[in-house]
Amino acid sequence: MEGGGGKTWRFASPNTTLAAAGEMSLLKCLLQLHACLDEHGPRPVIPLSHGDPSSAPSFRTAPEAEEAVVAALRSGEFNGYPSPATNLLARRAVAEYVSRDLPYKLAHDDILLTCGGTQAIETVMSVFGQPDVNILLPRPGYPKHEAHAMFHRMEIRHYDLVPERGWEVDLEAVEALADENTVAIVVTNPNNPCGSVYSYEHLAKIADIASKLGILVIADEVYGHLVYGSTSFVPMGVFGETVPILTLGAISKRWAVPGWRLGWIATCDPKGILRKTKVQDSLRSFVHLVSDPPTFLLGAIPHIMKNTNDEFFSNIVNLLKETAEICYGEIKEIKCITCPHKPEGSFFMMVKLDVSQLSGISDDEDFCSKLAKEESVILLPGKALGMENWIRITFATEPTTLKQGLERVKAFCRRNESQAN
Amino acid sequence: MEGGGGKTWRFASPNTTLAAAGEMSLLKCLLQLHACLDEHGPRPVIPLSHGDPSSAPSFRTAPEAEEAVVAALRSGEFNGYPSPATNLLARRAVAEYVSRDLPYKLAHDDILLTCGGTQAIETVMSVFGQPDVNILLPRPGYPKHEAHAMFHRMEIRHYDLVPERGWEVDLEAVEALADENTVAIVVTNPNNPCGSVYSYEHLAKIADIASKLGILVIADEVYGHLVYGSTSFVPMGVFGETVPILTLGAISKRWAVPGWRLGWIATCDPKGILRKTKVQDSLRSFVHLVSDPPTFLLGAIPHIMKNTNDEFFSNIVNLLKETAEICYGEIKEIKCITCPHKPEGSFFMMVKLDVSQLSGISDDEDFCSKLAKEESVILLPGKALGMENWIRITFATEPTTLKQGLERVKAFCRRNESQAN
Ligand SMILES: Cc1ncc(COP(=O)(O)O)c(C=O)c1O
Ligand SMILES: Cc1ncc(COP(=O)(O)O)c(C=O)c1O
Repeated sequence: MEGGGGKTWRFASPNTTLAAAGEMSLLKCLLQLHACLDEHGPRPVIPLSHGDPSSAPSFRTAPEAEEAVVAALRSGEFNGYPSPATNLLARRAVAEYVSRDLPYKLAHDDILLTCGGTQAIETVMSVFGQPDVNILLPRPGYPKHEAHAMFHRMEIRHYDLVPERGWEVDLEAVEALADENTVAIVVTNPNNPCGSVYSYEHLAKIADIASKLGILVIADEVYGHLVYGSTSFVPMGVFGETVPILTLGAISKRWAVPGWRLGWIATCDPKGILRKTKVQDSLRSFVHLVSDPPTFLLGAIPHIMKNTNDEFFSNIVNLLKETAEICYGEIKEIKCITCPHKPEGSFFMMVKLDVSQLSGISDDEDFCSKLAKEESVILLPGKALGMENWIRITFATEPTTLKQGLERVKAFCRRNESQAN
Repeated sequence: MEGGGGKTWRFASPNTTLAAAGEMSLLKCLLQLHACLDEHGPRPVIPLSHGDPSSAPSFRTAPEAEEAVVAALRSGEFNGYPSPATNLLARRAVAEYVSRDLPYKLAHDDILLTCGGTQAIETVMSVFGQPDVNILLPRPGYPKHEAHAMFHRMEIRHYDLVPERGWEVDLEAVEALADENTVAIVVTNPNNPCGSVYSYEHLAKIADIASKLGILVIADEVYGHLVYGSTSFVPMGVFGETVPILTLGAISKRWAVPGWRLGWIATCDPKGILRKTKVQDSLRSFVHLVSDPPTFLLGAIPHIMKNTNDEFFSNIVNLLKETAEICYGEIKEIKCITCPHKPEGSFFMMVKLDVSQLSGISDDEDFCSKLAKEESVILLPGKALGMENWIRITFATEPTTLKQGLERVKAFCRRNESQAN
């Protein structure tokens, strides 16, 4: 391909798979929305769009966690590549943490440490990604599942989450979608973007179907334990006897430190099927190939997991309960937006936009762009998650900020309601 | 495939490319050597095998760098995903740092930040990796270049580094190896594993040939500035007018903090060819897909790069000069091992093993296994780097430890020399 100057450069044929995967990026969508903002707007920008509460003072991480990382840094013992001992202790700490909620115990060898949940997703998709293979992903979903599956040449088949049934998995659809080339189903619980939490019974049904189909369950539990409704959090790993499960976790959300970059893949598979089929070896090979997480976080994680005060966790959960209520209440007052299911977990809410009630607004993207421009509020268009004319609202922020943001959304909607209404 | 219990699991066909790439891992080789160690040996283990001096007190990182990271953590401002502002300032700091040695200035947009040099390698190999494409890699080389190229389905073609010519690139071989499917040549300078540093003239020739072939130069300069011989460090980017260059860098080695996980890809391409051919877009797409580096390192990096005292750098370089001398001197006294070229940069030395002078030792691997078992010293067999019957010695450690380790190597060789000698 021509690269300028009339010269032919041999490296210039573009990687089209990567370009397609890149299109799935939320970051790209959010940057476009930020570009819509009125720089000279009189009011501060209120982003209710991304899964990162850490900048809100009320969501500041636990002092014990911060101390543990500072101490690891100050010791000078964790500046290098992780030693086998550091690695072992870190994996053992995570194994114990994940095992607390399981009917069996994980060993350190069941844990692989990753640079956040993101690298955990990258790892599983790299290992299973082969041409002709397909994977079942939820719609609406988390775009990085799609992007990594796509980049690793898998065919993506979407099963729906059903808003009228509390965003449960459409189980019949799963059965109908799978064929002999299906390798896995991804289940996100607590759910991003829906804010739903699956019951024990529902998870049991998913495990049964996966077992019947002979496919693996990839349980994205990055929002594990962030629940505040009537359904308690049940890790998918509880059903490890039924079907092999790879659980993806991270400290990013529960500790409100997505910038620290520590996650994991836990092999919840008491029957040892993933060991016998060498899936575990492949996962380990990939993790050895790519970057380790920061070593001082490996040094700190046993302390973080052991010492973080329960009060910190309950404060965060209570705050999310409060902000979820605020969000649900405010949205109820907006005619063109409805929320089919009050959030019970994570910190997102999916709401339906009825554009027919608005004049001059064509769809969810148009709504979010104009809202950014006119009200300096950022919401995420559902299209970015596979759901046109839906919107995702993040409510993990200071209650006062959230109220202000939602007041602006309300004002925007009122102003744009069509005369007929 | 059968997964036990008579049931067929559909995910169980192994990823063979990954298994092959996993075999390239140094870690695996080192773990095997560690397994040879005599647990009840009377003396402490001396590892002279891996590129991480950070545990030696003399190589403790600069206090300014440690302070900067602690301050970023303590501020609570860098717990979340990187904000556009944090990202911008970090990229600008790296752009300024890399530009110091270039005849033109890089902008923040020429920099992508990565989780260490490893993720920089992963990124370039992911972007260029397509079936039917080939890439030129040095032999001996750094196994992660090979592993990532292989995992991303490129054909690897090795050009030799010539020991008799100070491990310079065999330029004729490069021309003969390339064809219309070649996309890039990887050049590591200062070199791991050879400890060589390329002159301005030699680098200019590499750039000319790459330009003539129409291929990109991937300059792995993770050991940049760690030079102590008569050849000064010239970044490949100096030849950016001749050929587009992607420079891979990291703070891992120069600051002795490989556990911190901050690296970069710098586009050294003043003619904008990588922009025009959209290579830069592909790199950016990939980096958005995978894990960001820890945010508090992004927050700290402007301070680290601005405030690290020159004395810290010169101390490290002087120490490496001293340990390189020790290593070179001690090896000279061993009959069956010769060093063709005294190291001038990085912290490695490649030495040739003459097994014909030893009895009962079959090759480099056998030598290193027995050395581990009998002397509790770990050296890296050249086979792991593509060079059978060579050995890589790392000398970045305390001078006293290094001397002890090499005394043990000497004793081991003497004991195993064949009677004929
Ligand atoms: C469902 C889900 N999985 C994984 C991740 C990635 O986690 P991390 O930030 O730890 O990389 C996120 C982040 O938003 C997420 O929402
Ligand atoms: C030549 C070379 N490139 C890249 C790397 C990886 O750098 P990092 O530790 O920053 O991931 C290394 C590490 O040893 C190396 O030797």
